[in-house]
Amino acid sequence: MNNQVTQPLRGARDFYPEDMRKRRSLLDRVRRSLESFGYEEYDAPILEPLSLYAAKSSEEIITRQSYVFEDRGGERLVVRPEMTPSFARMVAARQRQLPPILRWYSIPECWRYERPQRGRLRCFMQVNVDMVGSDSVQADVEVIDIALSMIRSLGIDMKSIELRLNDRSLLNGWLTEVGADKGQWGNILSLLDERNKLDQKDFRLKLFNLVPSEVATRLMSFFTLSARDVLADKRAERLREVKEKLDQLDWSSNVKVDTSIIRGFSYYTGVVFEVYDTSCGITRALFGGGRYDGLVEALGGSPVSGIGFGVSDVSLDQLLASQNITLPFLSENKICVIPFSQGEEAATDDCLVSLRRLGYTALRALPPYNIKKQLAIAQKNQVSFVRGEKG
Amino acid sequence: MNNQVTQPLRGARDFYPEDMRKRRSLLDRVRRSLESFGYEEYDAPILEPLSLYAAKSSEEIITRQSYVFEDRGGERLVVRPEMTPSFARMVAARQRQLPPILRWYSIPECWRYERPQRGRLRCFMQVNVDMVGSDSVQADVEVIDIALSMIRSLGIDMKSIELRLNDRSLLNGWLTEVGADKGQWGNILSLLDERNKLDQKDFRLKLFNLVPSEVATRLMSFFTLSARDVLADKRAERLREVKEKLDQLDWSSNVKVDTSIIRGFSYYTGVVFEVYDTSCGITRALFGGGRYDGLVEALGGSPVSGIGFGVSDVSLDQLLASQNITLPFLSENKICVIPFSQGEEAATDDCLVSLRRLGYTALRALPPYNIKKQLAIAQKNQVSFVRGEKG
Repeated sequence: MNNQVTQPLRGARDFYPEDMRKRRSLLDRVRRSLESFGYEEYDAPILEPLSLYAAKSSEEIITRQSYVFEDRGGERLVVRPEMTPSFARMVAARQRQLPPILRWYSIPECWRYERPQRGRLRCFMQVNVDMVGSDSVQADVEVIDIALSMIRSLGIDMKSIELRLNDRSLLNGWLTEVGADKGQWGNILSLLDERNKLDQKDFRLKLFNLVPSEVATRLMSFFTLSARDVLADKRAERLREVKEKLDQLDWSSNVKVDTSIIRGFSYYTGVVFEVYDTSCGITRALFGGGRYDGLVEALGGSPVSGIGFGVSDVSLDQLLASQNITLPFLSENKICVIPFSQGEEAATDDCLVSLRRLGYTALRALPPYNIKKQLAIAQKNQVSFVRGEKG
Repeated sequence: MNNQVTQPLRGARDFYPEDMRKRRSLLDRVRRSLESFGYEEYDAPILEPLSLYAAKSSEEIITRQSYVFEDRGGERLVVRPEMTPSFARMVAARQRQLPPILRWYSIPECWRYERPQRGRLRCFMQVNVDMVGSDSVQADVEVIDIALSMIRSLGIDMKSIELRLNDRSLLNGWLTEVGADKGQWGNILSLLDERNKLDQKDFRLKLFNLVPSEVATRLMSFFTLSARDVLADKRAERLREVKEKLDQLDWSSNVKVDTSIIRGFSYYTGVVFEVYDTSCGITRALFGGGRYDGLVEALGGSPVSGIGFGVSDVSLDQLLASQNITLPFLSENKICVIPFSQGEEAATDDCLVSLRRLGYTALRALPPYNIKKQLAIAQKNQVSFVRGEKG
């Protein structure tokens, strides 16, 4: 017997009823927002075969941050660090029976073995939103519109919300044009992904160490283009269209083109984006997403394009906290019925049955039936109405 | 890349949107039923330190059925096979701040490595209901009342539902009286737990192999008492009171006293019960629960008595299926808005924003805007209303 185990694992949280009310209050709002766009909830098991993740997840997540183990039958399993591979597996398995356009969301528990810090824990609930079956500009726009609308539905002041937008295919076009060695693309993208954490000099130095100096020079000329010049590039047509349509949806002050946005996951192929809260001095993205093309195919399905994003409840909590927002939750109007003595117990039970049938939350007092003590207990339980039942 | 991974792990389920609607429909009803009794939802992480489970869980579950592994820091973890140890840990950690009587429920995902069979999978959602802080008869009665009321709220015909009731302390009284060696109690209880799966001869034989024949003979005389004779035993006062109060709550035809009911978990100390569906020829319990006294204390809290039960969504699905019940779910009234051409896109978006603000689920058609195709897609998405927007 171990008397020490009073805490959850490091980086994980217990949800006492008051914490759970807050979580439900947040996630119910998220659900309502996503469902208003026609997105439907799905779910998958938290344990998956490792081979599913080996295929397509971010290398860092799988090799350094995943809980991987063998079960009693010798099969290697992963405690889900993200939902996208499970999602792609499900789509691939029933692609023929499913509608041609899927709008799905999920809010799974995920685990990553990393150093817990502000806005990032080892265990979190991750809201996942994906649309599969259309590679249209309108699909890009819809998913980004959802990301911003979901935040707005929480009562967030949108003035401090910035969504930074890029297109992986534009980057790929640049890499092709400058003749960068294909074997180096991954390293160049990883370096670009770090760009906002490095100062400009370090970034330059690392790039020149990575590729021949003529390639590096030409890449730097692309990477340092202003957003306006980027959008003037013929290869940036998609980015321009997405930006324009988002402007039409009144997101012009929130959406900025930023060619340093990459997203770590290797499966992204098109539009990628990250959302920042500029009010609180944090330079890390709250969350992000993007378009992926090969994912469903990699799991045995037909080629189909998808776009999606994921955001953890920890990030959303952090956003709410930075703006001092407490989400209200429906108070339940609890009623407690207290018999004055054992003789009134039967009448008490009748009363409770009737109240519950009428839809009320009705608690029964438990002996001893000392009214003063009972009222104190009722108060601790946040009961709003107490009735003493006389037989 | 692995093209084979199209299925979830053996004994686990994917929840496609239509499956998820069913699950939500079931669990929302369960939630409403539990909340009407004043029970509040809590949650805990699915990974816990092994030491938490080593303390008090069923030995079979921990040594043979749990997913146990080491994390990257060398800590031994368990994928939660049941919720009670996490629950007890949470209560122990904040006992002084929490109200004296706790009515809590949770619906966590749990994993057990066992052979999947009808009504039993490796991965399931387990409804957990616990009341802590009162060892009164009324508390026993409330939790059993909840178990039966929850089933009734699903529309189940209660004629085939039998709740078999026993009291571990009555058994302990018998074991003391016949002078059974304390070191053998666990084995005797395990054998008794198997009794309904053995024929009477085998049970007798195994009991006589386990303990001296005079002890076995006297135990057999207790074990073969009729329910009426059991209730006449002075030591069965608690059992009698619980049965009487449940009868008063109109459960007399559902609740039967049965001294062969043990429940595998070693932490039970008082009333124990199991629920059976007598209509479908299955002799295995759908679910069960009981009173535990030492659990919170074992995790560093003050001594406090609790009673609770757990039931998986798989068992509830099985029960619904055996009675051919399909739970209705709220249809969403999806609206799809289709522009006739790119020129009507802006008007379409305005229309969608207004519809969503009014609380409707509104889907946007994606290009190409071929009306015939769009209507076919809308139908596949079970859209109930389509509007073609003319600019």
